Amino acid sequence: MRILLIGAGGVGAAFAAIAARRDFFEAVVIADYNVESAEKAAVADDRFSAARVDASSADSVTYLCREHAITHVMNAVDPRFVMPIFEGAFAAGADYLDMAMSLSRPHSEAPYEKTGVKLGDEQFARAEDWESVGRLALVGIGVEPGLSDVFARYAADHLFSEIDELGTRDGANLTVDGYDFAPSFSIWTTIEECLNPPVIWENGEWRTTPPFSEPEVFDFPEGIGPVECVNVEHEEVLLMPRWVDCRRATFKYGLGDEFIEVLKTLHKLGLDRTDKVKVGGVEVSPRDVVAACLPNPAELGPRMKGKTCAGLWVIGKGKDGAPRSTYLYHVVDNEWSMQEYGHQCVVWQTAINPVVALELLANGTWSGSGVLGPEAFDAVPFLDLLTEYGSPWGLQEL
Amino acid sequence: MRILLIGAGGVGAAFAAIAARRDFFEAVVIADYNVESAEKAAVADDRFSAARVDASSADSVTYLCREHAITHVMNAVDPRFVMPIFEGAFAAGADYLDMAMSLSRPHSEAPYEKTGVKLGDEQFARAEDWESVGRLALVGIGVEPGLSDVFARYAADHLFSEIDELGTRDGANLTVDGYDFAPSFSIWTTIEECLNPPVIWENGEWRTTPPFSEPEVFDFPEGIGPVECVNVEHEEVLLMPRWVDCRRATFKYGLGDEFIEVLKTLHKLGLDRTDKVKVGGVEVSPRDVVAACLPNPAELGPRMKGKTCAGLWVIGKGKDGAPRSTYLYHVVDNEWSMQEYGHQCVVWQTAINPVVALELLANGTWSGSGVLGPEAFDAVPFLDLLTEYGSPWGLQEL
Repeated sequence: MRILLIGAGGVGAAFAAIAARRDFFEAVVIADYNVESAEKAAVADDRFSAARVDASSADSVTYLCREHAITHVMNAVDPRFVMPIFEGAFAAGADYLDMAMSLSRPHSEAPYEKTGVKLGDEQFARAEDWESVGRLALVGIGVEPGLSDVFARYAADHLFSEIDELGTRDGANLTVDGYDFAPSFSIWTTIEECLNPPVIWENGEWRTTPPFSEPEVFDFPEGIGPVECVNVEHEEVLLMPRWVDCRRATFKYGLGDEFIEVLKTLHKLGLDRTDKVKVGGVEVSPRDVVAACLPNPAELGPRMKGKTCAGLWVIGKGKDGAPRSTYLYHVVDNEWSMQEYGHQCVVWQTAINPVVALELLANGTWSGSGVLGPEAFDAVPFLDLLTEYGSPWGLQEL
Repeated sequence: MRILLIGAGGVGAAFAAIAARRDFFEAVVIADYNVESAEKAAVADDRFSAARVDASSADSVTYLCREHAITHVMNAVDPRFVMPIFEGAFAAGADYLDMAMSLSRPHSEAPYEKTGVKLGDEQFARAEDWESVGRLALVGIGVEPGLSDVFARYAADHLFSEIDELGTRDGANLTVDGYDFAPSFSIWTTIEECLNPPVIWENGEWRTTPPFSEPEVFDFPEGIGPVECVNVEHEEVLLMPRWVDCRRATFKYGLGDEFIEVLKTLHKLGLDRTDKVKVGGVEVSPRDVVAACLPNPAELGPRMKGKTCAGLWVIGKGKDGAPRSTYLYHVVDNEWSMQEYGHQCVVWQTAINPVVALELLANGTWSGSGVLGPEAFDAVPFLDLLTEYGSPWGLQEL
């Protein structure tokens, strides 16, 4: 297996640090628009090399694949670049993995009721082409989407006879020393995903709601405790119902009431806008100004404290037919990930899952063709290998 | 009386519209840095003329005073320009009026406990000079400070034998059609005054508190209803105890919980900063970006609905020695002020008070020398003349 890792940002660099400890691959070419970031990440292992790539250009991706005889393209950049990388890998005859999916566009008339273009629609429209040439695009294989989808498969196969709801629930108790307010992830992206109309699967169809709908306090395990969660647009809701029978699928993000209030305020004041406004003699995008006023999340690892939890709350009937409500989850402590890998817990937890998936593809445990989500594969070997990597998952009856 | 009105912004233009209906003066020279604004305001009356002024230059003010034989300088610009206008008037031998006072600077070590340089300190430091030449500087004669201070004098002379608290309370129920969030006054100035340490007079001394302290729901009269009020730095607290015996003096602003949340969020994200940050290739002040994203308050009058209330809550013992709690207030309905004068209620309510004061000075009812607040004069003729102008005040026992 020869991997082209596109993106040497937070998640890409953590991917490299995790992969460096495994022997299932022959080479990883780490490519970034900023070649110095790629070179920095590539020092971790002799099998790593660095390259420059323009992720907005399918040709640039295809060229690199051919140059390095790439078998698998691992997309670790911003979802704006999903389609060119996906197409570039296809043209080069390589398999493809990402941790998000192609972007949505709201319904033009009823954005908070009906879906327009959904997350992943552009990729699924190409599924037959991938299948016909026997190539695999494994989409949404980070932690959420990713591990959450593996949990859905596991619940359906081994825990439940009937599923009412597959509810992904994400929460953390992270704090950052020295800052009143310091998001541990890009505020630009958070604004984007939280202000898009959240999508819900219910009774055989997808629909949308207004942002921050259906607030719910979820009690997260391992000492994180109760966090206010709200509906957010996320890939799981589009992936799970394609392979796992369920009456309802939701994603709720434990933003906490403080963060929700900040996002609502930014929207109310028009500070989430990406188009430019005139300010004195210059023009700037207000959202860029907001990002410039906050600390860079990639540099916060050493000041962060606490744990992050990704998981899936499954409600339905157990194998014995009795009502069952179970939370399957994965917690990472920032102190541990910083000490073990030098990467903060949020990016580390995202990055470990595609490494596990690639190892299963390399040794033939997982195989397939077409555009598939993580729930299209057997969950047990994935969860076993995750535990073998030193990062076990948990299960709690609710 | 020959008046130099400096500033043809919202309040200055409303001052001109109100003064045009009175005959106590010979001439008003309306001066602004932007001479077109001055010319626009000057068309209201034959006795008005327009001029250009640099309000940051005392010499520019003195020159205009001498050129037009000015007897009274009326300062209607941003409080950053109080000192040059105050000094320029003094040098020209003119009397002076303003609607704010010279600015404060926080205590360097304990900003939220102790006062540093207080509002008006720089002006009061010059009081003897004004007194020795027999000239008057009447400071803080808008609505708040201004009418609120007149109420303090009235309460002490006619309603109370002993005063525990002089609590200015300002609230409104204004909405702006077509906007989720549209402040009816400058967001730049509101951030400045609300994020400065609020000052309180208690037991014979001034002290400060953290911003937004001592939240209290005050029930405003004439249908405005309950509004959340918090401590804000304001001139009344510095003025009233100099002339009126009281155990405590406070100012609480009915910002409402939504506006308070917005201001706290802007501060938390560093978006209240006035120094410039780099954003891509340009540099901007985040507070200017916030202002640029919001509608211009001067243009909102026709879309505004509701009433604004300024007043003073007095707690103590009545003339009969029994406990008494009375709110003295002045309410302006935006629909009325727009129809009658073409100016929105917040600026109109500010502007009427210095016109009334100038009329009392012109006819000799009020006289004095030195640096004096409105509470240094007899309140009754002021309140009677305000009513005669068609804008009566009210009184409510609480």
